[in-house]
Amino acid sequence: MAGPVLSPYAHAQRERIVDTLFQWLRIPSISAEAEHAGDVSASARWCAELLVAAGLEHAEVLETAGGPAVYADWLHAGPAVPTILVYGHHDVQPVDPLDEWTSAPFEPVIVDGECRARGSIDDKGQVLYQIEACRGLLSVLGSLPVNVKFLVEGEEEVGSPNLEQLLAEEVERFACDVVVVSDTAMISPEVPSTTVGMRGLVAFDVSLRTASTDLHSGRWGGTVPNAAHVAARLVASLHDGRGRVTLPGFYDEVRSLNPDERASIGAQPFDETAFRAEAGGVRVLVGEEGYSPLERIGVRPSAEVVGLHAGYGGPGIKTIVPAVAGFKVAFRLVPHQRPERVEASFRAWLDGRVPEALECLVTRHGGVAPALTPVDHAAMGALVGAIEAVWGARPLFTREGGSGPEEALGRVLGAPLLYLGVGLPGDRIHAPNERMVMDQFWKGLLAAGELLIGLGR
Amino acid sequence: MAGPVLSPYAHAQRERIVDTLFQWLRIPSISAEAEHAGDVSASARWCAELLVAAGLEHAEVLETAGGPAVYADWLHAGPAVPTILVYGHHDVQPVDPLDEWTSAPFEPVIVDGECRARGSIDDKGQVLYQIEACRGLLSVLGSLPVNVKFLVEGEEEVGSPNLEQLLAEEVERFACDVVVVSDTAMISPEVPSTTVGMRGLVAFDVSLRTASTDLHSGRWGGTVPNAAHVAARLVASLHDGRGRVTLPGFYDEVRSLNPDERASIGAQPFDETAFRAEAGGVRVLVGEEGYSPLERIGVRPSAEVVGLHAGYGGPGIKTIVPAVAGFKVAFRLVPHQRPERVEASFRAWLDGRVPEALECLVTRHGGVAPALTPVDHAAMGALVGAIEAVWGARPLFTREGGSGPEEALGRVLGAPLLYLGVGLPGDRIHAPNERMVMDQFWKGLLAAGELLIGLGR
Repeated sequence: MAGPVLSPYAHAQRERIVDTLFQWLRIPSISAEAEHAGDVSASARWCAELLVAAGLEHAEVLETAGGPAVYADWLHAGPAVPTILVYGHHDVQPVDPLDEWTSAPFEPVIVDGECRARGSIDDKGQVLYQIEACRGLLSVLGSLPVNVKFLVEGEEEVGSPNLEQLLAEEVERFACDVVVVSDTAMISPEVPSTTVGMRGLVAFDVSLRTASTDLHSGRWGGTVPNAAHVAARLVASLHDGRGRVTLPGFYDEVRSLNPDERASIGAQPFDETAFRAEAGGVRVLVGEEGYSPLERIGVRPSAEVVGLHAGYGGPGIKTIVPAVAGFKVAFRLVPHQRPERVEASFRAWLDGRVPEALECLVTRHGGVAPALTPVDHAAMGALVGAIEAVWGARPLFTREGGSGPEEALGRVLGAPLLYLGVGLPGDRIHAPNERMVMDQFWKGLLAAGELLIGLGR
Repeated sequence: MAGPVLSPYAHAQRERIVDTLFQWLRIPSISAEAEHAGDVSASARWCAELLVAAGLEHAEVLETAGGPAVYADWLHAGPAVPTILVYGHHDVQPVDPLDEWTSAPFEPVIVDGECRARGSIDDKGQVLYQIEACRGLLSVLGSLPVNVKFLVEGEEEVGSPNLEQLLAEEVERFACDVVVVSDTAMISPEVPSTTVGMRGLVAFDVSLRTASTDLHSGRWGGTVPNAAHVAARLVASLHDGRGRVTLPGFYDEVRSLNPDERASIGAQPFDETAFRAEAGGVRVLVGEEGYSPLERIGVRPSAEVVGLHAGYGGPGIKTIVPAVAGFKVAFRLVPHQRPERVEASFRAWLDGRVPEALECLVTRHGGVAPALTPVDHAAMGALVGAIEAVWGARPLFTREGGSGPEEALGRVLGAPLLYLGVGLPGDRIHAPNERMVMDQFWKGLLAAGELLIGLGR
């Protein structure tokens, strides 16, 4: 078997590509900080020019209510082959605490085979190898094997607040057969992997009131309802003794794993000590009985109270019986759970537990369905082949515990999501000294080329 | 039986006494508001002059770190009769919301037999009838039947922060055989009552930490400990299904009521609808099985979580697994529970419930033992007789759910506490339109005289 098609190109263009990468990384496109709004715009214009230089067409900076996105395409492959939308983002995280950086965050350097800079792996590097793969194929083959569109977002790091509206407004422009997401990581350089599922999310805010005002605990304590007690009992009863969520029917629609899927998760290396250290130094793992930590995060739903507040929180003691309490709970969903069904179940659960004499107000926040890439889709075969061709090993299938903007892409555009991502667990995304391992970057470039070729077959 | 000794005196001095009351009520001695510090001092000086005018001696304004107290005495009754310390306070509550007052708070008026002004019943009126009773007895009898001391505090409404130190420093000056507290209420004009017990208090602040930082609920949810869940489980398990506190041995030292005491509480009129309305409009009463609401407040201990906080409390949702949670719990104690024993029990309770892998920090706040007036004390007979002579009915014995500065008086001075108080449930203390029913005031004056006579027998 010959090596990847783009190997000679990548080798020949090495210096120019690194120089290009560095130019982009020098733009401090921090979407969370208003004073960097101009930099986010500059980064978008720079990206659009890069796409044009690579040979893509219709390049355009798409303004939104927040940071601008970038679009470009190459649509000359004809109707017989699919249209691919490549998704990534050009905005970056803030850099605090600055004094923990060993080199300046916006002065990229390559040390020990790693490019160190904010945005190196998250996500400019991962967008760049996709663009360079197109440039390479256009240079080597004179055309692309499939129709390609790029959508490079400008506010992913602040939660993509305007993405869904942009997608809805430009649904024709973004129409595609497959979305290729270039913003994820793999298990290790020796154990390549690809994401095949993301948990969904639906959250609720529950407000309870027992009386018109806080009451004096001496005068009334022991005989009036205490809102803190009521909220605590609700939160405490959200899970049973086996770590299972107690909402009625919560697990009814959870798809069981087939033995292959379970084996694939079981095959992932798992170092509990390292895992606990990464998780803020927790001394023990908890969760649903009968499932491993990776299964609990990837393929099992969860309920986490993200906030719980009642009564006095200042120094010392205030002798009150709190009249008001509230909590917020986020449910992570897995196929085939649906946010609407979980909402109905949560409301029924509350109805059965909140004493009738109490005021109880429930507000729903968001609602993202879980995403699952069909592993038997033809496009998945192309991705597996591309990764295997470059890394020399068949990728494992992983599940992400969280939900990103990708879910909206798949849902609004009605296309399956493929994840080609070369990040590694030690890349320190969102933290000081973010890095990209350059060997992974070059492999990403080769794999992106192989993927387009595979998708065109 | 002749009428109360002071009846003719009160009748003759009526106008002068009301004029005196109004003068005092015009001084806005709000201890909680720094801009009224001068008024609190003026009120203290005014009170000291009143005590001198009434015939008491050694009148002195006692400066403290906060609002000044007033002392005076009359000690010529000889060693064969007891020394009585009359306690009250001359500071008042703030007046907000001002627009809900039907007349200006510091421009006293008498309407429908009620004196309306801030401080009328809480507590200037109740101090005044004690002073006037002495003045009357000195005028009618030429001497007092017992030795009398007055302690009129200047910062009761801000929690008496300096009282205990003042008592400790001046323990000789305040030495007495009985404390007469003149700052409470009775059940109704037709159902006179006196307080015979106050619950004690000990409180704790519990801080829990599960990880060094909040974790992303997508990345980690379902497999790491959630501090909000841990705190909620602790709070939820503070009471069992019968409403009893689950601390080990919590009830071991709770004195049982004798049938007479239980009957006295049972004889108190109790209107649940009115009680719930007064308690901030709660729609239901809760508490320990087998006890009435008045028993739960007065003679049974309680545990109330006064604050419970974990994770995010802002608008919307933040998808975290909280690493930190805290709660504050206040235990109200009854005879013969002791704060130190409850602390040991609470720490043992936590040890048995907090997973070892968690950081848990406990801070104790305060510690006030419960107070119980010995109902078979000779002084209590004098109080019962005085109230019966004036109101025409034997007083019921009530218990207060809270703990006031009186506890320190009884403890530091080693004297039993008698409560002569003429307030009524509708007096709106601490609220707009505070009032004192003038008929209760005059009865208070007569009863204060009868009490001194009774105590001298």
